[in-house]
Amino acid sequence: MVNKNTAAENAASAAGKESALIPVGVVGSGSFATAIVKMLVENCNVVHWCVRNEFVKGAIELRGHNPTYLTSVSFDVNKLKITTDINELVSACDIIVLATPSIYLSDAMDRLNVEYTDKIFVSAIKGIVPKVNDVVAHYLRQEFNIGFRNQAVLAGPCHAEEVGMERLSYLTIATVEDEVSEKLNSIFASSFIKVNASKDVLGNEYSAILKNIYAVGAGIASGLGYGDNFTAVFVSNAVREMETFLEAIYEAPRDVNDSAYLGDLLVTAYSLFSRNRNLGNLIGKGYTVKSAIQSMNMVAEGYYAADSIYTTAKENNVNTPIIDAVYRILYGEENAETVFAELTAKLN
Amino acid sequence: MVNKNTAAENAASAAGKESALIPVGVVGSGSFATAIVKMLVENCNVVHWCVRNEFVKGAIELRGHNPTYLTSVSFDVNKLKITTDINELVSACDIIVLATPSIYLSDAMDRLNVEYTDKIFVSAIKGIVPKVNDVVAHYLRQEFNIGFRNQAVLAGPCHAEEVGMERLSYLTIATVEDEVSEKLNSIFASSFIKVNASKDVLGNEYSAILKNIYAVGAGIASGLGYGDNFTAVFVSNAVREMETFLEAIYEAPRDVNDSAYLGDLLVTAYSLFSRNRNLGNLIGKGYTVKSAIQSMNMVAEGYYAADSIYTTAKENNVNTPIIDAVYRILYGEENAETVFAELTAKLN
Repeated sequence: MVNKNTAAENAASAAGKESALIPVGVVGSGSFATAIVKMLVENCNVVHWCVRNEFVKGAIELRGHNPTYLTSVSFDVNKLKITTDINELVSACDIIVLATPSIYLSDAMDRLNVEYTDKIFVSAIKGIVPKVNDVVAHYLRQEFNIGFRNQAVLAGPCHAEEVGMERLSYLTIATVEDEVSEKLNSIFASSFIKVNASKDVLGNEYSAILKNIYAVGAGIASGLGYGDNFTAVFVSNAVREMETFLEAIYEAPRDVNDSAYLGDLLVTAYSLFSRNRNLGNLIGKGYTVKSAIQSMNMVAEGYYAADSIYTTAKENNVNTPIIDAVYRILYGEENAETVFAELTAKLN
Repeated sequence: MVNKNTAAENAASAAGKESALIPVGVVGSGSFATAIVKMLVENCNVVHWCVRNEFVKGAIELRGHNPTYLTSVSFDVNKLKITTDINELVSACDIIVLATPSIYLSDAMDRLNVEYTDKIFVSAIKGIVPKVNDVVAHYLRQEFNIGFRNQAVLAGPCHAEEVGMERLSYLTIATVEDEVSEKLNSIFASSFIKVNASKDVLGNEYSAILKNIYAVGAGIASGLGYGDNFTAVFVSNAVREMETFLEAIYEAPRDVNDSAYLGDLLVTAYSLFSRNRNLGNLIGKGYTVKSAIQSMNMVAEGYYAADSIYTTAKENNVNTPIIDAVYRILYGEENAETVFAELTAKLN
């Protein structure tokens, strides 16, 4: 693979030598995990990759691409150290990027039995961990004693498919330590990835989860026959609701119109490739929730998140009409058309 | 046409009797003017309509629809009073909605020779008046002594095409007097139109103009091959730039994430039907600015606005990297690819 970095475009170039040697690994073998490996091989001599099973490992080693997701992305297998053992990966790496679907994270983490103090865990997961019914940052701290200083959150807007095509994308990396921030910038920034730094770890994590619920809602609206005019109103209400939610949950200096919040919401709510939007669209068109889920072969994080986030909103007395509406449709077996007719009166 | 209003959905119903008798007229015969007439006939017994020429007048009276724009929208011609004389319309009406393209507004207004004190002028125009190189609100005040108390601004997000299809849309009507606000609400709100009230007259007008320039920019990006990830970053930067611009030009309490600002930007920047986005897209694909303009049969307001708004930004020392980029491409004959490559480094 040709490294396209140019001095003008890419701050990582200057630190090229150093970043090339940082031991980094990715856990997960879905489309976003694959996109992250693609970003990292631009800068790192070796990228460790913990995949789901021996079949996936063998397929990548043999053919140089993921057999199921982002299959068009080719890797130089000499730059990959593929394993199915998270302990092997964690032992070898200083930086571990977690990129499984949220429902499979604890399957992976429960196997962890090697030392991991001083390692940096970067969450690229945009969902709730069912085992603790909470966000990844809280799960890592509570269950594994990994403090926020050893955590980072990778936020979008960043559809894996476009990373695969090397279309210019902006990542936001949220972490509290400047040194960690710089190190992560140096391994992620490239000719097609620009990196914004943030210190709002929890805000970025919640925002990435909320946007999936709003994307389900945008899909429901579309499936019900609402048009572009309504979608624009829906999304502008959603970002205001997001701001209210984030302020109630975790106070931090933030502009909700930064790319990691509003931008990530936009790319998910407007993209026809978003699985969350597609799930909503099927429900809006009249599928039952169960049949809509069964018809999709990828996990729609927004479905699982809606339950937990709804509860969090209620516990914190946050007024969230859109989350409430999506929750009632997904979990209350309420009619989508009726719920959205009610919702339209609450939007402005 | 069946009136679909229900008590639950539509605040205007209660005031139905009163609003039905308010003398209101629309100036203009393009697609948005036609959509506005459609909104008004839902509530008003008679809607006055000043169209461009006798051909348009005759065609509507004969066939019950606009011969060129929104041709699928049928009118009960008994509810329309069509004229080509603005003086006849202004004399007959208390409320005059101006909905011509901005470049044709002074052609219409220059003919005005009847009394218009105490009339309300509602601008549905989203562009700069060339004669004064300024926004409509300033033009009306300076050239016609129509004060802000007698003005209102009609803001979206509101694609005419979807109004034509009676898809639920939200209008924002900005005006300083509560009484005027209520009256306008009563004639616009219907089963498919919800009305938000605002007092930010100039902010809504500038925002509606800025969003057209940003839509040209989004189109240029798309034409150049940038993807959804970048568009999301572009739009989230645009709304922040819009906020900075509005704060510098006209201080007023506003949330730039309200539907009239962010929502209007979204519907224009994301819609494939937006003429501003289409103009940009052609330029991004390599058309010269001149040939791109010639290939479109509708006015792209963003083109004319970019020149004036660029100057206003400079005069007020507002940092507007996106407007600057669009201006340089449209008026500086600079290469779109080069200008956008530079712009990407200024976004975050």
